[in-house]
Amino acid sequence: MNQHYASVKQAFNLAVGSEITLRGWVRSRRDSKGVTFIELNDGSRFKSMQLVVDAGIVPDEMLKQVTTGSSIAASGQLVESPAKGQAVELKVGEISVYGTADPVTYPLQKKGHTLEFLREIGHLRVRSNTFGAAFRVRNALTHAIHTFFQERDFIYVQTPIITTSDCEGAGQMFNVTSLSLANPPRTADGNINWQQDFFGRPAYLTVSGQLEGEIFALAFSKVYTFMAFYELADNMALAEEFLKFIIRYVLEHCREDLEFFNERIEKTVLSTLEHVAESQFGHIAYTDAIQELKKSGKTWEFPVEWGSDLQTEHERFLSEELFKKPVIVTDYPKDIKPFYMRVNDDNKTVRAMDVLVPRVGEIIGGSQREDRHDVLLQRLRDSGLDETAYWWYFDLRRYGSVPHSGFGLGLERMMMYLTGLKNIRDVIPFPRTPGNADF
Amino acid sequence: MNQHYASVKQAFNLAVGSEITLRGWVRSRRDSKGVTFIELNDGSRFKSMQLVVDAGIVPDEMLKQVTTGSSIAASGQLVESPAKGQAVELKVGEISVYGTADPVTYPLQKKGHTLEFLREIGHLRVRSNTFGAAFRVRNALTHAIHTFFQERDFIYVQTPIITTSDCEGAGQMFNVTSLSLANPPRTADGNINWQQDFFGRPAYLTVSGQLEGEIFALAFSKVYTFMAFYELADNMALAEEFLKFIIRYVLEHCREDLEFFNERIEKTVLSTLEHVAESQFGHIAYTDAIQELKKSGKTWEFPVEWGSDLQTEHERFLSEELFKKPVIVTDYPKDIKPFYMRVNDDNKTVRAMDVLVPRVGEIIGGSQREDRHDVLLQRLRDSGLDETAYWWYFDLRRYGSVPHSGFGLGLERMMMYLTGLKNIRDVIPFPRTPGNADF
Repeated sequence: MNQHYASVKQAFNLAVGSEITLRGWVRSRRDSKGVTFIELNDGSRFKSMQLVVDAGIVPDEMLKQVTTGSSIAASGQLVESPAKGQAVELKVGEISVYGTADPVTYPLQKKGHTLEFLREIGHLRVRSNTFGAAFRVRNALTHAIHTFFQERDFIYVQTPIITTSDCEGAGQMFNVTSLSLANPPRTADGNINWQQDFFGRPAYLTVSGQLEGEIFALAFSKVYTFMAFYELADNMALAEEFLKFIIRYVLEHCREDLEFFNERIEKTVLSTLEHVAESQFGHIAYTDAIQELKKSGKTWEFPVEWGSDLQTEHERFLSEELFKKPVIVTDYPKDIKPFYMRVNDDNKTVRAMDVLVPRVGEIIGGSQREDRHDVLLQRLRDSGLDETAYWWYFDLRRYGSVPHSGFGLGLERMMMYLTGLKNIRDVIPFPRTPGNADF
Repeated sequence: MNQHYASVKQAFNLAVGSEITLRGWVRSRRDSKGVTFIELNDGSRFKSMQLVVDAGIVPDEMLKQVTTGSSIAASGQLVESPAKGQAVELKVGEISVYGTADPVTYPLQKKGHTLEFLREIGHLRVRSNTFGAAFRVRNALTHAIHTFFQERDFIYVQTPIITTSDCEGAGQMFNVTSLSLANPPRTADGNINWQQDFFGRPAYLTVSGQLEGEIFALAFSKVYTFMAFYELADNMALAEEFLKFIIRYVLEHCREDLEFFNERIEKTVLSTLEHVAESQFGHIAYTDAIQELKKSGKTWEFPVEWGSDLQTEHERFLSEELFKKPVIVTDYPKDIKPFYMRVNDDNKTVRAMDVLVPRVGEIIGGSQREDRHDVLLQRLRDSGLDETAYWWYFDLRRYGSVPHSGFGLGLERMMMYLTGLKNIRDVIPFPRTPGNADF
């Protein structure tokens, strides 16, 4: 068999006449008079390569094994394709079968499975059109993020997964323990003896690495995704540049996948993304946004009052109807935002910012941080948090404090925005949900 | 104050005469007759910029606050520097202070702190030369890995952190639970009622995502770090190319940081890295390696016998003395390797490979995977593992199985190799150790 291996992606860029070997999985097979057509996919791009096998070229015994889901190598010559929608196809000279897939039991036999069904087979769903496209997009998205920041001299920092503090008071967290649940060590008064646990006290899976991000920002200036010396306006400009960059990157690198989503999942995917990439984002203060919502004449499911957080219906109105493009809302009431956001001179609002986009609402949230030691301490006390757990966070304001800001992109929310998929479980490679940590 | 902000890194590339503003942290300050010299560092590169402040330029009250650890902005003109080791310095026209750092309590006051001391102040150690350099190197290392694979069309996949299976039977793991340890729900017979836990059964922090990596490899062909259609020889070639690429990348992007490590931490850092980047790696089968170790005439702390795993002393001998360059050892006895490695025709060895490099020994481990369903099942049963937990892993061999291989780089081990640092806690941004999950 010809040793000139190519991926399907590469093959579509080779000259007609090239002699190559493709390797992949059979998506479908169709027998016509004297010819067998095989769609071969190797995940390198959305499109499969059509293999054309004339009668007598491959022994019947072997051809019988070439069914949906089986894995094969096929050698032959690239020829112009008479079929619509593809420039070339492979005229097969030889086939070998790596692994079969019993047509009776192979779950991806027929087309048009529901997303619910595919979720049950997390180990095979990646071989379907939808999930293949989704995870190629996810790859492009994550690399777009790295590219954007690395090109601008930002340092990547891995923040911890295990924490002993309760970031943002975000509520219930998972306990991480090396103690036996059946028979944990106890103190004399019957409580759990946490000193015998691995970390010497209760530890949790963190909900955010953002506070630790500040440690690095105050040494390297630019880390992702925290920036020293950035005030709110700088932060807003960077978030806009960032969002446009990653959208353009995915549009460029995953066009074919996005076209699939646009056709099959959500008709507005492409138009929305192209619109966002070309817009100059609007800016509006929260207080002004409340005014606009009140005078809109709309009926809201959630009442609009200064001091209440914006709901998705409000966010979508601001972006889709009022501005008709992405808009950044700033300066939210301090009582609905965490203690670490910088208090404005009005002493009522903080330097928070949310980037709202058409179709989903908030896609990025960020803020300038409180860099004044005493103001921060008062805010933390007002929030009812335990200040002893934050001693190091206060040191950052004690020694060489500087204005600094940052923002966070919801990666999964961005994935849903890019693909139009509505369920977060469909954009995570291995989702963990109540009762389910399979695969 | 001049609004033409530049990082220290950028400033060193600007023309003499440029009027700029730098922002960063004071590393040191020295007063001479009529002149104050300030070393300003912003983390953008190893080197600080020297600021020269002539007497009378900055009010005494303000200059008094410019002490080690304080944060300032300084405007002025880039001029040629008469000092050794730097082309330019900043002749200061104006200074403003963001945050002070009390000289009495600021912990990084003096130079030459021990690594042990710095570990206790994980929130400030990143402002020191050693840790600044280490985490710039870590950033370059991780981006080198992404760049290498993305340029070659590999798909990045995020494998799960939480698992309900015990990968590789690797032993004690951390339990991840939403149950109350003090008072967990119990079944009638007194055992923990895991059905009431979040995932409906015991869940753990995983020790590896490699089995899940195979799910993606058998759909996308190339994912990092698993590759479908790669046999062991392909895997070895890729590992060699990969290791050389990331070393060259870090040499190119972090030269200054590596020079620091070479001078202060480990004298052979640069020579070893340059040697590895230029070597053609040697290859030797485990069985032959055992022969060589036996006839070396050396006295070993750990006895050399066919069937025992290689220890660091053996690995270093093979790389440093026998081959005098990196060497890949292959085909280890199956009894010392996990069940999922492909069994060779001799039925005694498996297609494992370890890449050994001078100074540390193993730096990459990998294997071709067992793609034959029945052989895999027998190996799993011989290993005493619970086959029901691996149903999906067997499905990958039931439907469209193909030869596939992969390898893993120990990221922290690579960091220690690049920097010469000897303690793994010094190359991790926020290390977690017994009794310690601070910061």
